[in-house]
Amino acid sequence: MTTRSEPFRAAVLGATGTVGQRFVTLLEGHPWFELTALAASERSAGKAYRDAVTWIQTRPIDETVAAMPVHTIDELKDREFDIVFSALDASVARDIEPEFARRCLVVTNASAHRMDEDVPLLVPEVNPDHLALLPPAREGADLPNGIVANPNCSTIGLVLALKPLASAFGFERVSVVTLQAVSGAGLPGISSYQILDNVIPWISSEEEKLEIETGKILGRVSGGTIEPAELAVSAQCNRVPVVDGHTLCVSVDLKGEPTLEDVKEVWGSFRAAPQELGLPSAPAQPIVYLGDDTPPQARVHRDLGQGMTTSIGRLRECPILGYRFVALSHNTLRGAAGGALLAAELAVARCGRHGSE
Amino acid sequence: MTTRSEPFRAAVLGATGTVGQRFVTLLEGHPWFELTALAASERSAGKAYRDAVTWIQTRPIDETVAAMPVHTIDELKDREFDIVFSALDASVARDIEPEFARRCLVVTNASAHRMDEDVPLLVPEVNPDHLALLPPAREGADLPNGIVANPNCSTIGLVLALKPLASAFGFERVSVVTLQAVSGAGLPGISSYQILDNVIPWISSEEEKLEIETGKILGRVSGGTIEPAELAVSAQCNRVPVVDGHTLCVSVDLKGEPTLEDVKEVWGSFRAAPQELGLPSAPAQPIVYLGDDTPPQARVHRDLGQGMTTSIGRLRECPILGYRFVALSHNTLRGAAGGALLAAELAVARCGRHGSE
Amino acid sequence: MTTRSEPFRAAVLGATGTVGQRFVTLLEGHPWFELTALAASERSAGKAYRDAVTWIQTRPIDETVAAMPVHTIDELKDREFDIVFSALDASVARDIEPEFARRCLVVTNASAHRMDEDVPLLVPEVNPDHLALLPPAREGADLPNGIVANPNCSTIGLVLALKPLASAFGFERVSVVTLQAVSGAGLPGISSYQILDNVIPWISSEEEKLEIETGKILGRVSGGTIEPAELAVSAQCNRVPVVDGHTLCVSVDLKGEPTLEDVKEVWGSFRAAPQELGLPSAPAQPIVYLGDDTPPQARVHRDLGQGMTTSIGRLRECPILGYRFVALSHNTLRGAAGGALLAAELAVARCGRHGSE
Amino acid sequence: MTTRSEPFRAAVLGATGTVGQRFVTLLEGHPWFELTALAASERSAGKAYRDAVTWIQTRPIDETVAAMPVHTIDELKDREFDIVFSALDASVARDIEPEFARRCLVVTNASAHRMDEDVPLLVPEVNPDHLALLPPAREGADLPNGIVANPNCSTIGLVLALKPLASAFGFERVSVVTLQAVSGAGLPGISSYQILDNVIPWISSEEEKLEIETGKILGRVSGGTIEPAELAVSAQCNRVPVVDGHTLCVSVDLKGEPTLEDVKEVWGSFRAAPQELGLPSAPAQPIVYLGDDTPPQARVHRDLGQGMTTSIGRLRECPILGYRFVALSHNTLRGAAGGALLAAELAVARCGRHGSE
Repeated sequence: MTTRSEPFRAAVLGATGTVGQRFVTLLEGHPWFELTALAASERSAGKAYRDAVTWIQTRPIDETVAAMPVHTIDELKDREFDIVFSALDASVARDIEPEFARRCLVVTNASAHRMDEDVPLLVPEVNPDHLALLPPAREGADLPNGIVANPNCSTIGLVLALKPLASAFGFERVSVVTLQAVSGAGLPGISSYQILDNVIPWISSEEEKLEIETGKILGRVSGGTIEPAELAVSAQCNRVPVVDGHTLCVSVDLKGEPTLEDVKEVWGSFRAAPQELGLPSAPAQPIVYLGDDTPPQARVHRDLGQGMTTSIGRLRECPILGYRFVALSHNTLRGAAGGALLAAELAVARCGRHGSE
Repeated sequence: MTTRSEPFRAAVLGATGTVGQRFVTLLEGHPWFELTALAASERSAGKAYRDAVTWIQTRPIDETVAAMPVHTIDELKDREFDIVFSALDASVARDIEPEFARRCLVVTNASAHRMDEDVPLLVPEVNPDHLALLPPAREGADLPNGIVANPNCSTIGLVLALKPLASAFGFERVSVVTLQAVSGAGLPGISSYQILDNVIPWISSEEEKLEIETGKILGRVSGGTIEPAELAVSAQCNRVPVVDGHTLCVSVDLKGEPTLEDVKEVWGSFRAAPQELGLPSAPAQPIVYLGDDTPPQARVHRDLGQGMTTSIGRLRECPILGYRFVALSHNTLRGAAGGALLAAELAVARCGRHGSE
Repeated sequence: MTTRSEPFRAAVLGATGTVGQRFVTLLEGHPWFELTALAASERSAGKAYRDAVTWIQTRPIDETVAAMPVHTIDELKDREFDIVFSALDASVARDIEPEFARRCLVVTNASAHRMDEDVPLLVPEVNPDHLALLPPAREGADLPNGIVANPNCSTIGLVLALKPLASAFGFERVSVVTLQAVSGAGLPGISSYQILDNVIPWISSEEEKLEIETGKILGRVSGGTIEPAELAVSAQCNRVPVVDGHTLCVSVDLKGEPTLEDVKEVWGSFRAAPQELGLPSAPAQPIVYLGDDTPPQARVHRDLGQGMTTSIGRLRECPILGYRFVALSHNTLRGAAGGALLAAELAVARCGRHGSE
Repeated sequence: MTTRSEPFRAAVLGATGTVGQRFVTLLEGHPWFELTALAASERSAGKAYRDAVTWIQTRPIDETVAAMPVHTIDELKDREFDIVFSALDASVARDIEPEFARRCLVVTNASAHRMDEDVPLLVPEVNPDHLALLPPAREGADLPNGIVANPNCSTIGLVLALKPLASAFGFERVSVVTLQAVSGAGLPGISSYQILDNVIPWISSEEEKLEIETGKILGRVSGGTIEPAELAVSAQCNRVPVVDGHTLCVSVDLKGEPTLEDVKEVWGSFRAAPQELGLPSAPAQPIVYLGDDTPPQARVHRDLGQGMTTSIGRLRECPILGYRFVALSHNTLRGAAGGALLAAELAVARCGRHGSE
């Protein structure tokens, strides 16, 4: 893919949290990126990564990474990186990310800059052309600087399911009710005392994110900015006692009265830039329709395509909007670190000076 | 309420299941009904109740009931009862309930006869007038014979939330996504291996029940039968790892553009026949609006009003249907045994020969 | 019980946590104690209680208490109380509790002073005579000042099960493995991401507490201090995804080779000072042996005796220590706020100037 | 390993249950065994495997296997197999397994024949020499016939942890309390209504199995039969709401007063026949000591070594038996299908006519 002989030097900001841990795991052995620095909060700084992190991944920490020192973010400001992966909290990310973005490419999972005019809100299979918002790479640099943002973890599953429908049929109204895993809230996140034997039908700012991000992602580049899709989106979000995997109950008013078979066909044949480019983290199938009698289930289907495939099932008619279905997406892989890594790979392939298509 | 000096003789069919256990618990010390017989499957028959049942209620079994023998259903066919509570499976209920209904009043939680023309599908606060479908009590009997059916456990919470809106504003379209507790599937019900760390976005026949029952319950009596309300109802049902309590995410297109305060006022002031009649199992408030910032939560709110109150929260505008909110209802109390018991009380008060209002 | 005409003025320190919430709930309508002040951290101070607390009790907050202001602890130092209930963290309790104890009676659930020489570590049914460590009430005061400590939530269930065995048979070695609910860790406590689909076989300092507290509680007053029982206690503690209720697997080397029936008889007939005095929070039976075939289960049995009864089951021979059984105790009721309240009641009845037996 | 050019023809009995599904998954692409037939109950027979099974593995069913027909067990009695993997219920296995064992090698996860005199109860790293109970392969056969049994899922983790200690130090008393995952009970197994927010401190016959199997496995071959180790084993078993992974709290009276470091060294260096033979399913390390501060956790550590490694942590002194620690083992991989497959591989390598070491 890339003709550059050296790997890109990568840093992870917010490396001890749930998304940070996923970044660290996914970067292990990555063909293009080499993890060269870790940063986290003051409390963790100065320790070896293994001592700073409450590791809760099934895959053990790579020994080399485990021994790496954790820095404060300030300590990284003078170091050279080609790319920075940010798993910072939005409140911290707001000021920090633009500073790094003046010097290198920042791919972030934080929400702080998602709606900025010059920031592509990227789902590589859905809106790869939005990378046009980035400036060209500067003289001597292999990658452009700027920020590429990963959407909200629920938005990603939704727009992956919707994109082929938007292209093939079009629609104006989407209603989605989510059942979201606790890992989406990070660490410590939701107290176990609050969620065991319970549903919490509210997640701070989540409905607003789903409703506004969907329009931007499905929008089109026009005059150097994004013109959002004209959509009415209704989102209702629930937290459920599930470890990983967001379930979405979706209704949509597809135009042109396609048959249910038409819709399944459109999903099944969907391939996009990451598949065409053979990006390292791209799943063979971004979407799998499991079948009419196989409802997508968090524990059973979240790991399909190494957690990068969105599972869909139960397509049926809706007496109100016409069509409804269930979608499932892994919220800390496709919906966070995995999605951001794929976005970085697309940026390298499309915008990198040594990249080639 | 009733001037009859003797309690009504009651039997419980299907006494060992989760709903049967709730019937047994709720009938303990009931002022009008006396539990005189228990029936269950062949496997349980002949044992003392305490030996036949896998008791999973927090309240211990009453000692008298624990020592009662469990009969086969056939053994009860020749005995005299004033009222029979049925917690049978639908497949068994289909043939058995009409046999009992020829001789006494049957109040059932089974789905088998819910949509029968001559069967009131009763939520006492919502459609008390549907009792008009029952024939008058025969000479010498204090109660009419026939079947009174309890709706599906999710339907009940939905129509309780909708009824005041139907009366005050009217609507034509309702969309509901449910997050349902495992107790709704009975015993053994859902395997723990399937639901731990999982959501199952499908419940057999549940969506159909919600969509069709809602129209019947909100319909009106006309010429000795029910004319269903003209409604488009879209239901999507999910099973979640919660013990008790069904959460409903509801959108509805209220007419006349009421303000959100108007809607809350209508819910807060809602009282109906069970409250006016002071029925023993009636909650003081059938509906509580918890407040804009207090989402109804299964573990926290399901026991409000002894499990008979529906909690509502998060009323807000919906970009598609206009209004949306979250409702929560206890599925084995209000949604099953408690609701059926309240229905029986209403039948006594309204249709009993010695009852008075 | 008490001839005093005015209720004792009570304050709750740490009122917003899980144990603090339980104190508030249990003091509602208490016949002897009147809640007159609430204190919590700086973050909560200045707010009304309803706004400062994340309420997660099934019983709604009493409206009067909901409107009470939350103070800082400093603000309460000059106010007059007869009794202070402390649900503070141990780190805060260390300095604060002795300050209050110079002026009134402090009943605490914190671990900071449990092993102090002059502090009774009280389980009212087990070691009521340990109250002798308190000084006599001063002139003009109805209650002694000083600290009465509630043991660790797991220790309480253990010593309740062991006390009748100690009295009837004696033993020298006890092995206990605990399966503890998440509520024991308070709020936020254990992250849901850590405990869902998981067991954490470690709880900070918990094993040490169980091993050392058991000896003190089962010890005897001698020369104004406690001489610990000579016991080898082995404790292994596990956190499990359960809301409330600690399960204990216990082995013990009873002396004198009693039959299993002897042991059950000793448990079943156990009554102690709280029952004899008729204390308001005393359960009729401090211990219930459920039967050989009824294992004590957290969700089913934790609420027996309003959460104050310890359930025991599965007594059988142990090939190593001779006897083994399972015990279950509600960790935030008997094991925390309920146990502390009962201790306060015993202190009033035994040490109060106006109390009488 | 084996010089045979054809793979061994394998059948799976009980192919639709949780262990059967694991067998099917593990046999996919196995270098020595080829899955040639599937059998299950009458209810499943005649269907394609994909239609007969409630698939709950993260890895999707292999397409070839999904299309295979499910047979009744009777239908397989006349077919030729080299090896039969049995995931049958014990009640069915009792009669069926000996029938197959007359014609080929049966490797079973069922408990029916574990304690039979001529059946090795095999944990390949622990007692490979017990294979001597099998007869030599008959003329023309590559494998011996007879039954090789997999121990109980909890026993396996226990004896793996104990074996190096038995060899290095010796002991006479072992106390174990288990916290067992729901998958161990199969499908449907434990009802979700019983285990959510609960611990069930009882598993039918489980304690007896642990107590008796441990002695047989750690025993020695003597005169064509097994002389059990002289051990007092106390087992107390609990079911907890965890999907996979059994946690064991173990105390043991090691002889010779080894230091804790001695013990860890013995575990860390443990290798056995499967590692030496390089068996396909053998983990590089059968035991990993995670460290003093890393308690083995079901969700975090169960998949170590592809679910074949037993994790140990928290070794510390025990005031009663001298030493205690926590062990964790994957109950449906190492503890069921994976363990049985490794046993089969060992049988091929050690007893197969074409095997070589």
